[in-house]
Amino acid sequence: MGTPRLLDQHALVIGANGFIGRHVVRRLLAEGAAVRIMDISPATEEFSQLEQATGSVADTELLASAVDGVDLVVYLANSSLPGSASDDLSGEVTAHVAVTVKAAEICAQKGVKRFLFASSGGTVYGASSEAPLKEDSPTRPRNAYGASKLSIEHYLSLLRRERGLITLPLRISNPYGRGQRALRSQGFIAAAMQHAVEGTQLSIWGDGSVQRDFLHISDLVEAFVAAALAEDPPEVVNIGSGRAVSLREVLEQVEAAVGRKIDVTYAPGRHVDVARNVLDITRARETLGWEPQVSLGEGLARTAKWWLERSE
Amino acid sequence: MGTPRLLDQHALVIGANGFIGRHVVRRLLAEGAAVRIMDISPATEEFSQLEQATGSVADTELLASAVDGVDLVVYLANSSLPGSASDDLSGEVTAHVAVTVKAAEICAQKGVKRFLFASSGGTVYGASSEAPLKEDSPTRPRNAYGASKLSIEHYLSLLRRERGLITLPLRISNPYGRGQRALRSQGFIAAAMQHAVEGTQLSIWGDGSVQRDFLHISDLVEAFVAAALAEDPPEVVNIGSGRAVSLREVLEQVEAAVGRKIDVTYAPGRHVDVARNVLDITRARETLGWEPQVSLGEGLARTAKWWLERSE
Repeated sequence: MGTPRLLDQHALVIGANGFIGRHVVRRLLAEGAAVRIMDISPATEEFSQLEQATGSVADTELLASAVDGVDLVVYLANSSLPGSASDDLSGEVTAHVAVTVKAAEICAQKGVKRFLFASSGGTVYGASSEAPLKEDSPTRPRNAYGASKLSIEHYLSLLRRERGLITLPLRISNPYGRGQRALRSQGFIAAAMQHAVEGTQLSIWGDGSVQRDFLHISDLVEAFVAAALAEDPPEVVNIGSGRAVSLREVLEQVEAAVGRKIDVTYAPGRHVDVARNVLDITRARETLGWEPQVSLGEGLARTAKWWLERSE
Repeated sequence: MGTPRLLDQHALVIGANGFIGRHVVRRLLAEGAAVRIMDISPATEEFSQLEQATGSVADTELLASAVDGVDLVVYLANSSLPGSASDDLSGEVTAHVAVTVKAAEICAQKGVKRFLFASSGGTVYGASSEAPLKEDSPTRPRNAYGASKLSIEHYLSLLRRERGLITLPLRISNPYGRGQRALRSQGFIAAAMQHAVEGTQLSIWGDGSVQRDFLHISDLVEAFVAAALAEDPPEVVNIGSGRAVSLREVLEQVEAAVGRKIDVTYAPGRHVDVARNVLDITRARETLGWEPQVSLGEGLARTAKWWLERSE
């Protein structure tokens, strides 16, 4: 058996129109994979030549036909967002957990070989910790988003053991880069970029001392490639920079990258915020042969370039 | 504020007709609590004088009326069994996880103060371990039952933090005692008792060296009482004997207690079996002031008495 290559594979990217999805599709195409896309919204012009399935992952017939003949599924669909309200937890279980588990079961039935799932390194662990979080650290999801991601992981692990579908949840830290919009609550760096470029006021929770783990999108995309190709992938893996950076430091570096000051106001911290969240990425290094290549300064410079071009 | 007492409380036991449920109801009644019961099947004659709701926990109207005015809910309902097939995982998520989370949400809305949930110490951890399992040990559920129990725990934890309902999952080891039937795959000791009493052949998986943690039902019931009354209950707690006993040793002790030999055959071990599963009960001791009182020999003697009386 030779080294697996993406060139020989049929891949389906679910959630292909999102920030991560678009980058993953481009990268898989560059490797020569036969890429099919699925999203709730129709494909943009860039991907209009690709085979596409437009609709919800909850549409099991659509999904079953989309995965037909597919080797690799990259599952990026989300029915909820990290900051979404949690006033209907059982609805979240039905809409997010049951739908995702069903999608993975369909993949197993249809003979898909590998199912890469975007889990959340920022919300499944929950507890604040000085030390970088390992995959075996205690998990106490701090919001509904994290509870759902972690619950899905449990069932994916069963599918792997019992039905031969190699499932691999990637517990991703905070990705950033070109193409990430500031509209939703996901991207702190995108928000900072937008405020820097547009000169508007940025309000952040707490005093900015909170530390997070930011990962450039190109490193994340390489992690998906490594996860797709690893011969003996782990059960679950952290994908982050492995570095804790304070929001204040990020703001300073964004200002430097954009070349403009940001007008920041500080609001009292939310009780859900944890002081520090940084991932230990030893397992990814050892089992996927992956590690981040893009420094925060370099990543922010590239991202700032994109924002500045957009604003011209 | 005085020490809380069950005497002053209205309690609802959900799953009241099961093995654990019947013992819990009796104990709460003995403490003077006002006890209401809910179960999918009608109450037996013993409980016919109690207020009762007969139906599924998925019937949200029935449940809402059953928890009206209730302080304490003991949730023992199960839509699946530890050994059940896992050929419809998403169905399991909908039928078990979503229904239980919805039930807890209704309890929160209706002003219930405390929600005790029967989780599973035997299936949420999964990995075999020489050392007794602590609540912070890695969780890798080894079957659908464990995945669902653990997923439910995640959402209960959110309800506790965000909606003021004190939820407490009890990760219970293997309970046994009078009243436990041998019909279902839950009770190894019940099965051994039945075969000893009836002289039929018992087939067990593996060579009998597998070690488990068995807890007498009266100790389990006291754990529920302690959990109901603890002023500052933990987020999750192991409830077991804290002792590892091999199946062979259990069989020998059952034979001694019943006074008859069991005809045992050994079948090849299932791949899901873990060699050893024993709970560390330090947290229960420290936070609930609870610890088991009934030795395995004493518990088996009491259980054997019940089986022998039944067979006369």
